Amino acid sequence: MTTHDRWLLPDGIEELLPVAAAKVEQLRRQLLDLYGSWGYQLVIPPLVEFTESLLIGLGSDIELLTFRVTDQISGRSMGIRADITPQVARIDAHSLAQEGVSRLCYAGEVLHTRQTSLLASRSPIKLGAELYGDPSLQADLEVISLMLETMTTAGVPRVILDLGHVGIYRALLHGSGLDEAQEQAVFDALQRKSLPDLGDALQAVSNQQRRQQILELAGMHGDETVLQNIPYADAAVAELREVSGAIARRYPAVEIYFDLGELRGYHYHTGLVFAAYVPGHGQAVANGGRYDDVGQVFGRARPATGFNTDLKALLEILAGSLAVPETVAISAPAQGDAALWELVAELRAGGEVVISSSSGEIDPRCDRQLRSREGKWKVEKC
Amino acid sequence: MTTHDRWLLPDGIEELLPVAAAKVEQLRRQLLDLYGSWGYQLVIPPLVEFTESLLIGLGSDIELLTFRVTDQISGRSMGIRADITPQVARIDAHSLAQEGVSRLCYAGEVLHTRQTSLLASRSPIKLGAELYGDPSLQADLEVISLMLETMTTAGVPRVILDLGHVGIYRALLHGSGLDEAQEQAVFDALQRKSLPDLGDALQAVSNQQRRQQILELAGMHGDETVLQNIPYADAAVAELREVSGAIARRYPAVEIYFDLGELRGYHYHTGLVFAAYVPGHGQAVANGGRYDDVGQVFGRARPATGFNTDLKALLEILAGSLAVPETVAISAPAQGDAALWELVAELRAGGEVVISSSSGEIDPRCDRQLRSREGKWKVEKC
Repeated sequence: MTTHDRWLLPDGIEELLPVAAAKVEQLRRQLLDLYGSWGYQLVIPPLVEFTESLLIGLGSDIELLTFRVTDQISGRSMGIRADITPQVARIDAHSLAQEGVSRLCYAGEVLHTRQTSLLASRSPIKLGAELYGDPSLQADLEVISLMLETMTTAGVPRVILDLGHVGIYRALLHGSGLDEAQEQAVFDALQRKSLPDLGDALQAVSNQQRRQQILELAGMHGDETVLQNIPYADAAVAELREVSGAIARRYPAVEIYFDLGELRGYHYHTGLVFAAYVPGHGQAVANGGRYDDVGQVFGRARPATGFNTDLKALLEILAGSLAVPETVAISAPAQGDAALWELVAELRAGGEVVISSSSGEIDPRCDRQLRSREGKWKVEKC
Repeated sequence: MTTHDRWLLPDGIEELLPVAAAKVEQLRRQLLDLYGSWGYQLVIPPLVEFTESLLIGLGSDIELLTFRVTDQISGRSMGIRADITPQVARIDAHSLAQEGVSRLCYAGEVLHTRQTSLLASRSPIKLGAELYGDPSLQADLEVISLMLETMTTAGVPRVILDLGHVGIYRALLHGSGLDEAQEQAVFDALQRKSLPDLGDALQAVSNQQRRQQILELAGMHGDETVLQNIPYADAAVAELREVSGAIARRYPAVEIYFDLGELRGYHYHTGLVFAAYVPGHGQAVANGGRYDDVGQVFGRARPATGFNTDLKALLEILAGSLAVPETVAISAPAQGDAALWELVAELRAGGEVVISSSSGEIDPRCDRQLRSREGKWKVEKC
């Protein structure tokens, strides 16, 4: 590596320069304040933990995404977090261990060994909210509402809410007579929405009706008519109906889309799953779901539902449309008397940006400058 | 590892629970706003970069502190940043590459392989400001002032400013006739302030007066009287006098302490070095210095001076003294009509925290609740 390319960043690893960084900081504050106004308390988990604390059965995807390093103090393996949810679950289950409902939120960078989609960042800035201790559908409704408010607060003009429920696929699989390897083959084919592979994998299912129902699941997406004529998984279908009805009343502008064959997070989700999409962007900009009992590995099983978004993804979606007020600053000479120093401190405390100049050159962000007139400092147009 | 200790965090790796996290978030915002009011623009560098981009000759300390992982895309070595300064230097030199002066600031976590002192965190939250393109002493004065304002804004009651200048030791070493290994031995002994070792190492210096002067350097700390009777390094001594005089006028309450044998960052600092101490705390809470030409490895040598602090260290110093307004919230039933939903949205938009309750149990943070009286929703005391 020569001097000439020492500034290269790895693929999928970005830096944010002043305009983008100011937007991200603005979004971060607005969204954390939003979560605060709903009663969600900020926690700040660390960048690394022992691998066993981070990888708690949330699926092999997250294991493959996690960078590992050796702790020079204990000699044990640590992971750089690829997801903040397990950390917050640990905090709820062990560190806080409070009775009743707890609402927690977070904002922080995570790191991925590889890109989860073609243009995805390997260092997303994750922001999310988690609701523990409430098994009711009202909790899911709250979290979905907060995910939609996140989009509104960020200024995303049009949002599609994608709803699913892992209970539907579970009901079909239940009593299908498949062994683990056969189940995995069906799951893989369904996740890839590959009908030929799915047909092959389903040969192992003896019940022809069941086989047909699983095959149909791959195509079950669209408006609420897909909920009709599902003669199984009544409880899951009822939950989908209730939540979509309530969301339609609360947020009439949001388009609701059902995707019953969607199995993202199937290995740890236990109920409703949801995602927010923006037209023209293939990847979900936020997603979440119910994941009861994830705290069990830390000694306390708890009902849980939550969502998260990525500020870098939001930034890209918003592109030019997010207004950041342009800085208009005052230039001040670096050297001056005590009166100048006091005036500069006053101006800054009053909300002005004052940029010092030691050479007499004025920073291009300044439209005014401090000049001495007859022994007094005045703010004048540049 | 069993379920029972799966929640253990590695030594020196902390999580921040709601009260501490709220304080850190408050500090973060106040300090970034402070830097903004001085014209410093936020940048957000990534958590990882190629090792060659992070380790740019800032000394072996930082190399030993840096965790390394292999990039699965390029096969090359990446480092988890142990310091943000080299990243910001890269941004100034290459990514922004603007003419004239640039002022940048940042806030983010870093990771250390080991603790830099007995109780130090291995995952500090670094906040800092860097001033590029201004070689004048006014730039150092600005950065030192901003470091002191950081302490005031954070609410640190009493601050000691520690001043040094690498030019003093450099002047003594110049022409001492030592080879690299001998120089290193002298440096190590001086850094450890071990007089016997220093005496041994200095045997290699033939000039007796020079030997005596280096030996005396180890004891040269205290008030400004230590600047008297230094018959070498005139320029460095003049800079120390000028800066300490200006700081004393600007911040009469700050105690100034000179430490001429202090060699922290000697390998990359090129002029004034400074640190802020709080009585009763052994480690500096903020530090910085001039480090001209650090951008050279990225293709552009630039005058540079800056400082950084650690929000976790600040939090510890402030302990109970930092006031975070206690949340006083309103409880609202999770289920209700459209009028309830509208009122809740209004209250939240107006700055209230409204916490939904699906079970009827009221969150302990609530001192009021929403109740329906004759068909209208009212806020009442709990």
